[in-house]
Amino acid sequence: MNDSTRYFSSDPAQRPLALELYQSAAGLPLVCPHGHVDPHLFADPKYHFGNPVQLLIQPDHYVLRILHSQGVAYERLGIPLKSGGPVEQDPRRIWQTFAEHFDCFDATPTGLWIRDELADLFDIHEKLTGRNAPALYKAIAARLHEPDFTPRRLYERFNIAVLCTTDFAGDDLEAHKQITASGWAGHILPTFRADTLVHIERPTWPDEVAALGNAAHLSVSDFADFIQAIESRREYFKRQGATATDLAVLSAETGAYSVAEMDTLFQKGLRGQITAAEAAQFIAGMVMELARMSAEDGLVMQLHVGSYRNHDLDLAGRFGPDLGADFPVPLAFTRPLQPLLNRFGNHPNFHLILFTLDETAYARELAPLASYYPAVKLGPPWWFHDSLNGMGRFFDQAIESGGLYNTVGFNDDTRAFLSIPARHDVWRRAGANWLAGLVARQIVDMDSARAMMKALACGLAFKAYGLEKFAPAEVRLS
Amino acid sequence: MNDSTRYFSSDPAQRPLALELYQSAAGLPLVCPHGHVDPHLFADPKYHFGNPVQLLIQPDHYVLRILHSQGVAYERLGIPLKSGGPVEQDPRRIWQTFAEHFDCFDATPTGLWIRDELADLFDIHEKLTGRNAPALYKAIAARLHEPDFTPRRLYERFNIAVLCTTDFAGDDLEAHKQITASGWAGHILPTFRADTLVHIERPTWPDEVAALGNAAHLSVSDFADFIQAIESRREYFKRQGATATDLAVLSAETGAYSVAEMDTLFQKGLRGQITAAEAAQFIAGMVMELARMSAEDGLVMQLHVGSYRNHDLDLAGRFGPDLGADFPVPLAFTRPLQPLLNRFGNHPNFHLILFTLDETAYARELAPLASYYPAVKLGPPWWFHDSLNGMGRFFDQAIESGGLYNTVGFNDDTRAFLSIPARHDVWRRAGANWLAGLVARQIVDMDSARAMMKALACGLAFKAYGLEKFAPAEVRLS
Amino acid sequence: MNDSTRYFSSDPAQRPLALELYQSAAGLPLVCPHGHVDPHLFADPKYHFGNPVQLLIQPDHYVLRILHSQGVAYERLGIPLKSGGPVEQDPRRIWQTFAEHFDCFDATPTGLWIRDELADLFDIHEKLTGRNAPALYKAIAARLHEPDFTPRRLYERFNIAVLCTTDFAGDDLEAHKQITASGWAGHILPTFRADTLVHIERPTWPDEVAALGNAAHLSVSDFADFIQAIESRREYFKRQGATATDLAVLSAETGAYSVAEMDTLFQKGLRGQITAAEAAQFIAGMVMELARMSAEDGLVMQLHVGSYRNHDLDLAGRFGPDLGADFPVPLAFTRPLQPLLNRFGNHPNFHLILFTLDETAYARELAPLASYYPAVKLGPPWWFHDSLNGMGRFFDQAIESGGLYNTVGFNDDTRAFLSIPARHDVWRRAGANWLAGLVARQIVDMDSARAMMKALACGLAFKAYGLEKFAPAEVRLS
Repeated sequence: MNDSTRYFSSDPAQRPLALELYQSAAGLPLVCPHGHVDPHLFADPKYHFGNPVQLLIQPDHYVLRILHSQGVAYERLGIPLKSGGPVEQDPRRIWQTFAEHFDCFDATPTGLWIRDELADLFDIHEKLTGRNAPALYKAIAARLHEPDFTPRRLYERFNIAVLCTTDFAGDDLEAHKQITASGWAGHILPTFRADTLVHIERPTWPDEVAALGNAAHLSVSDFADFIQAIESRREYFKRQGATATDLAVLSAETGAYSVAEMDTLFQKGLRGQITAAEAAQFIAGMVMELARMSAEDGLVMQLHVGSYRNHDLDLAGRFGPDLGADFPVPLAFTRPLQPLLNRFGNHPNFHLILFTLDETAYARELAPLASYYPAVKLGPPWWFHDSLNGMGRFFDQAIESGGLYNTVGFNDDTRAFLSIPARHDVWRRAGANWLAGLVARQIVDMDSARAMMKALACGLAFKAYGLEKFAPAEVRLS
Repeated sequence: MNDSTRYFSSDPAQRPLALELYQSAAGLPLVCPHGHVDPHLFADPKYHFGNPVQLLIQPDHYVLRILHSQGVAYERLGIPLKSGGPVEQDPRRIWQTFAEHFDCFDATPTGLWIRDELADLFDIHEKLTGRNAPALYKAIAARLHEPDFTPRRLYERFNIAVLCTTDFAGDDLEAHKQITASGWAGHILPTFRADTLVHIERPTWPDEVAALGNAAHLSVSDFADFIQAIESRREYFKRQGATATDLAVLSAETGAYSVAEMDTLFQKGLRGQITAAEAAQFIAGMVMELARMSAEDGLVMQLHVGSYRNHDLDLAGRFGPDLGADFPVPLAFTRPLQPLLNRFGNHPNFHLILFTLDETAYARELAPLASYYPAVKLGPPWWFHDSLNGMGRFFDQAIESGGLYNTVGFNDDTRAFLSIPARHDVWRRAGANWLAGLVARQIVDMDSARAMMKALACGLAFKAYGLEKFAPAEVRLS
Repeated sequence: MNDSTRYFSSDPAQRPLALELYQSAAGLPLVCPHGHVDPHLFADPKYHFGNPVQLLIQPDHYVLRILHSQGVAYERLGIPLKSGGPVEQDPRRIWQTFAEHFDCFDATPTGLWIRDELADLFDIHEKLTGRNAPALYKAIAARLHEPDFTPRRLYERFNIAVLCTTDFAGDDLEAHKQITASGWAGHILPTFRADTLVHIERPTWPDEVAALGNAAHLSVSDFADFIQAIESRREYFKRQGATATDLAVLSAETGAYSVAEMDTLFQKGLRGQITAAEAAQFIAGMVMELARMSAEDGLVMQLHVGSYRNHDLDLAGRFGPDLGADFPVPLAFTRPLQPLLNRFGNHPNFHLILFTLDETAYARELAPLASYYPAVKLGPPWWFHDSLNGMGRFFDQAIESGGLYNTVGFNDDTRAFLSIPARHDVWRRAGANWLAGLVARQIVDMDSARAMMKALACGLAFKAYGLEKFAPAEVRLS
């Protein structure tokens, strides 16, 4: 199943073109401008991964949620309870449970990534089943302890040019500093994440504000202090190499509010007395503030829109967040973004990358907006849509009217460092296949397709995130 | 046109794989877990159908609406007026009108079903036209009167394993009892339909409540009585073999309300004084109540969401409901279902099957929800989407991220008993074609595809509806 | 790249069928029932186009917006500022800028149209680049001044049967009258556009009402006068050959309001005191009024729904409207259209053609509505969706459940007269390819496909717009 033409159309005219285009990009580096890999993996040159379950199952909510849907309780997967109560401790039993349900991943992106990882990293080419589970566990575990199986060696082997982490606004970035100081040639850059500062409705928000103040060495008691502290922290991130920020919001609502209006909401938030409507207004105002800062300091603004977090309150109560119970909602962009785009949509120093969990916006709103406003670019298929079909829909619906050069290439967006090559490979194969279809239907010629392939594979990502200094000359777009 | 490879991709690699997969399931029985066939067809062993118009045109709102769109008034199709006024009586003239418009069904699912029925049941292989209409009428009419052309014989010939009807909550299920008592080997099970009890805004609702009370031998004067009567009727249905319930609602809204709150609404409904907003609240509360009952009695809960009924008030006034003037509306699921899923989404005895008329929810909300909550499964493409392309979108958008094993196979959902084999055949062909594409693109191997084909064809439906006792051993999934 | 099979699937079974079907319609005339070509092009028999930039770039907001998205300011493209301030004047420099960004149009519909125009009208078969830009400019400019390169000769060469313009309700239609009087055999018909009369929220609305009154020779001081003036102007358009009207609205909302209610809103509008909610109500009421007029005078009603106009207020302020900053919003149809369809949906003299910028409505609401209400037909993919993929989605999502004969063929909807053949060619190729897929999958036979091809190419458009008197006998559908 690891044939060189996998995932390509079986059409006899399209398939060889897809392979040719794919191979034309095979030597290009991976750019990882947005993801959730822990920088500590690279701070310690001798870091080794734990066991196969810690590596492939427990940190991956894509895996956890499908097992959960089949009636496998999180306790059986060894996910720690907040209460400290008993959960499965034996990784071999967890692995066995996983293997016995592996059929449920057939034809899902997670199934493809794991199959590719097993093949490419562990030389395992048989399908995982309940029967071979113990043997495969042993084989993987052995490999994990080999001396070259460290994150730094894998980064080099994966041919990564630059990898951006996502970090709390108040983070001291010690891991990043250690990496820089170590003299290692890899590039691990931080990304400024503002989520916890913006979500004023959360009970933990006042603590987050305090933590921000501590990090910025400022006393934060009003909205003006708050803004100053954020600006100070952005500057700190920039000095450590950051080129971008990130923010996840439920809707794309933006609004222009005065400092006095924002301060009133800010004070209510500190007192824990904010209503849902006021919180939405505060968030809409903060998106605008963060856009203004990006226009000023040049950090690229990533906006991830549409995830309804912690839908299963029982799960969140017992285990905590980020375990697979976040779900998309319907979205609009044209109207909600108008206030922001009227201020900054034509600003030469502002760069906004939009991500959506509602694909219906691709052709309806996002491609039209990105193909008019110079500040707006469209991010790749995100989360549930980071899949062969999701990419196909993105290419067909977003790029046809928006144009390839208003998109930003790929984001692997993962905590699972080992899955990065497999994820980029799916993207490159899907892209090569799409371009081959365009060539086979004489929509573009092979010269254009080759240029588009390079752009998709890494050129667009280098450019959109201000990372071209890490790019080989042949893929630079500006 | 009745070639063995019809509806498959013409790609030379994919087509033979599709045929192989299709044929691998050819001998498997049909499971009909949700539909609207009249059980009386099977109560009388000698039941015969009327004429071709009564069989193929008048009961099928899929047919009626397309003729109507072309300016053919329902009177010309012999649909009875509530006023008793004159309508066309001659079935040969109605048949002629239909035949002269048969081109309008080109490439529609209804066109395919009728073509397949004519070929498979009536050995008619030419296209219906105004010219051959009289001869074909005669041929069909003759076949209808042949001694073996009874519902029971056809059930056997169709290789149906079990067929579930949909029945009013107050139904005495006499037809089902007669079938059981007759000793015939077919399985015709009732399904508990709560629609008329839930739609408190309808003027007929107080009568429906009274009818429920009569059926349950209870005096229903408050909400507690109402709940008790529903529970009693569900128990009655279960004793007659029911394994599922059904409910159709306009939105997926659910809500947790107290008995006192529900009783206030209930009393307003009885007095005919309920507002639209109050009715919506009552319905949201009833969805929750019915979910609670399902968690307790184990009857699978089917929720059909998104049909705006009786849009053409003139039609409804002159002819009555269910004649093709019901239309979909945009839908959301993540937020509206949260109250229900927080109570019962992880309940081991609760089984919720969701159907949508808004396909945008497949990839956005339904597949994500079904691939997390163990209680949630996703029903097949419904109504306007029960078509080759509708199935293709379902496979590509719902199954890729949700996983095949969080879906429930096929529902024919029809009143037209004779169309059942054609409908299942379209599903199996669409499924085989989709799986063949996965194999051709090396996304799954042929072994997995064969297992998935069996599951699609009937294994998933047997399991999801608690009907595995009717399943051949080779397709059982649990 | 101008191969005869361009844009067809490369599947070896489908491609030759597509070519055969495409060629079967090759000789059929173009029908242009909706577009924005200036009638003055045809009033003067010796009219010549200006330079290549005036022809291909400046009037085409599809081109402008993509250049703008890449950071090319409108000033650099020679778009005049309302202030009269300096903008680029040298067409050769503007052409150079365009050529240097032409890669950005790869795989977009605009890129395909321009490539086809260059090939078919200017015999230019190389790709436009910064390098060859001066030479191509010269070649195009030379061709523009050839004696046969007039709109009338091109109309004949393009084999256009009839072309409808879109004209302000108060237009005197002098250009149309001159064309008629000239004895030229071409058919250039006006279309009654009510937009400016309906959009009561715009500051210019009172002036528009006054202009309407002047045109109708009526003093318009209340709603009854207003309606009378509109009716009078519709009659005037009909006498000049109009068969249709056009209206663009943000939502599909319709409402039945009394004359008194409408007059109250009308008076507020005249005083410039109308709120956004009142304006929406007035528009919903006007859609109903215009439908009533259509039912009475028989002019086909076109309703274009979903464009949020002048999103970029800065652009609108500096340059004016219609420059590429209009964007789609999410839409619903079932509920908002109910008031209108309950009054006129079954009216034998009413013809409503619906256009959407939200494709999710195709399968969800539009195809279902069009395949029930005899008055409703579904317009072709519009604007951002007028593309190969947009057409593919339309065929797959709208026609399968709605039926081909509830659609209306193609609209080129363009101001760019020279792009008309390329746009129709894309439609015919997309249509032939879709039909070939149906034949290859044995969904329809070749006879049906040939009939459907003729209908798609022009038969449906002739019929839906009441233009069959201009149709060759072989394509007439009624």
